Amino acid sequence: MGGSTGEGYLVSRIGKEIELSPVEMASRHSTHVNYNLASGSPDPVTIPVDEIRRSYNTVLEEMGPKALGYPGAGGQAALVKEIERFLPHLGLNKSDGKVVVTSGAQHAIELVSKYLLEGDVVASENPTFVETLSPIKLRSSAVLPVSLDGEGISIEELDTLSKMVKISLVYTIPTCHNPAGVTMCEERRKALVEMAEQRDFYVLEDDPYRPIATNVPPPVKAFDKSGRVIYVSSFSKVLAPGLRVGFVVANEVIAEKLSLLEQNDFSTSTLNQYVLADLLKREVIQDRTERLSSHYRKKMELLVDSLEENSLTDFHSPSCGFFLLLNLHLNSNYVFQRALERGLLFVPAKPFFLRGGETFARLSIAAANEKDIVQGVSTLKRLLADP
Amino acid sequence: MGGSTGEGYLVSRIGKEIELSPVEMASRHSTHVNYNLASGSPDPVTIPVDEIRRSYNTVLEEMGPKALGYPGAGGQAALVKEIERFLPHLGLNKSDGKVVVTSGAQHAIELVSKYLLEGDVVASENPTFVETLSPIKLRSSAVLPVSLDGEGISIEELDTLSKMVKISLVYTIPTCHNPAGVTMCEERRKALVEMAEQRDFYVLEDDPYRPIATNVPPPVKAFDKSGRVIYVSSFSKVLAPGLRVGFVVANEVIAEKLSLLEQNDFSTSTLNQYVLADLLKREVIQDRTERLSSHYRKKMELLVDSLEENSLTDFHSPSCGFFLLLNLHLNSNYVFQRALERGLLFVPAKPFFLRGGETFARLSIAAANEKDIVQGVSTLKRLLADP
Repeated sequence: MGGSTGEGYLVSRIGKEIELSPVEMASRHSTHVNYNLASGSPDPVTIPVDEIRRSYNTVLEEMGPKALGYPGAGGQAALVKEIERFLPHLGLNKSDGKVVVTSGAQHAIELVSKYLLEGDVVASENPTFVETLSPIKLRSSAVLPVSLDGEGISIEELDTLSKMVKISLVYTIPTCHNPAGVTMCEERRKALVEMAEQRDFYVLEDDPYRPIATNVPPPVKAFDKSGRVIYVSSFSKVLAPGLRVGFVVANEVIAEKLSLLEQNDFSTSTLNQYVLADLLKREVIQDRTERLSSHYRKKMELLVDSLEENSLTDFHSPSCGFFLLLNLHLNSNYVFQRALERGLLFVPAKPFFLRGGETFARLSIAAANEKDIVQGVSTLKRLLADP
Repeated sequence: MGGSTGEGYLVSRIGKEIELSPVEMASRHSTHVNYNLASGSPDPVTIPVDEIRRSYNTVLEEMGPKALGYPGAGGQAALVKEIERFLPHLGLNKSDGKVVVTSGAQHAIELVSKYLLEGDVVASENPTFVETLSPIKLRSSAVLPVSLDGEGISIEELDTLSKMVKISLVYTIPTCHNPAGVTMCEERRKALVEMAEQRDFYVLEDDPYRPIATNVPPPVKAFDKSGRVIYVSSFSKVLAPGLRVGFVVANEVIAEKLSLLEQNDFSTSTLNQYVLADLLKREVIQDRTERLSSHYRKKMELLVDSLEENSLTDFHSPSCGFFLLLNLHLNSNYVFQRALERGLLFVPAKPFFLRGGETFARLSIAAANEKDIVQGVSTLKRLLADP
């Protein structure tokens, strides 16, 4: 029993196991670099500051103190209504489930984990996004890695696994995967929902990049007839992360329970919810998908071309989103340190893997401009040629 | 194993035990009543909408997209600095601990519970605030009730209890208690810290009303020399609840761990943090304490006088804050239903009690105007005279 510093004192399993995220770690370096290929934040040039400001003024002017009270559990009715109206834009319908507003997708996943998991066995793509996996991992007994290829999660492997072990939840980022950039094909989406039925597990579909993607298959949730898919999305990529508003679409029982759990943190700003409702009402967000999809696609094409020109070819070509997962064929932590010295920042991807991954790097085009991408890649190439 | 609705499906203990808060339940009636003596939200007339709006405009104008990125774990540096500067206003100093920004006090308590508790034994005032207790309760094996009188928690009872049982944490609302309205005297604050040392437990000090109170003793945290007190506060009462920004002051180890845990929800709006930093920098918040303290004190005096005029005298006179706990000497759920029919809303206080409390009502002067208070009390009196 410690005391003065708290060290050695009895803390929870979560308290003991929580670790600094590699993304957070990388971001601590971000002010000192020339080429930032690490950021998961949307490109600052895409953030509609004036529209957002206009909505703050409108909401505060029209609603006054009413916009500044405590948030109701589950979300302000005005925003829930606007999100319901927005669902078809995501390939979903109001009849697919009940909307629960959260403080971003990360908070949604934390709530779902808290509701569902207590020492359960979970399966997830390998690799997967380490930050969203963290709350899931901290409340489960094991997270089983399932291989990922250019068409998404391996249904065959998941089938074998789920025959051997009772899985409670499959966590997936089917569209514009983080960190792998790939998108699950429609056939696998259908197969995943069928398997969830047969083997009695839930699917947690994390879908934050859809609002900035075009030509992607419908959500897994769209094929779900029995409420087994819990759909999570966010306005962080299509609008701005700083408002911290996301949402869940889930069956009624789960939606009601997640709302109750929100009483325990009451974390979603009331004002920001009304601002988002105003932006959705004015169709500001809906209008952005096409433009942002093309903005990021161009940058991703440039990254892919630059890599190929430099004979760095061991990756799946990303279909959308911010990320590309490159096999460096060298320990990525070592390369990371060397890259930092030359002003290049990426995220060493080992922590995204449940198994393997030592030589992988997550490269991001999110906040990088054309120069960063081209010069970042050639810096990386020089490093790898002379490690 | 259920399926289609999720009912009967395996969920976590937290998923099973979470319940609708009585405050949330009461608030669902709030649009249909004449006299709202239930609200815990600050008086809408006190919310400085124009100052808040001014800060949103300033921050968005000066910072642009930088104000709208992902929040860093632990809080934006600019806000942490301003809160450190604000601490003396709360009777604390920068040297008392490290500041961690949270999405309000409720979120802070959720984080502290997650970090510290896993089937531990906790002690708390009886009654206590049911919503903040909820995350604590859901992660502990037992919450032991300790009596409360006009001078705060019974140190004698806590002493006896903590000799018999290994207590890990004492949760307390020492200043302007919710729901009892009382304030712990300085002597007991010192005794509590001493006991924490001797018996090796932490104290979680929940102090959201201090910024609207004058003439109250220093925080328990101010007497803490060894980092055993985790101090939680909020800007919800002194400014507005809708921004969802609060903070923790804790020893370095705990502060660092709470920051890491924030990676699992990333829920505190970046923009709102900068807005709050701007409001603190402009001394808007500091300037309000005296005025708000007097505003609420007058309303509380009116409530006390009205009750006494109606011979309703079974309560401790609140020293500050929003709440008064009245013994109705009748089942308060029954009276609640009857009161609703007559347009009066209060919170039946049984759920605030770990033991007893069936006949208590929590009366609030927060959002009520003078008429509501006077007529609400006379409605209550008529009801009790003819139940």
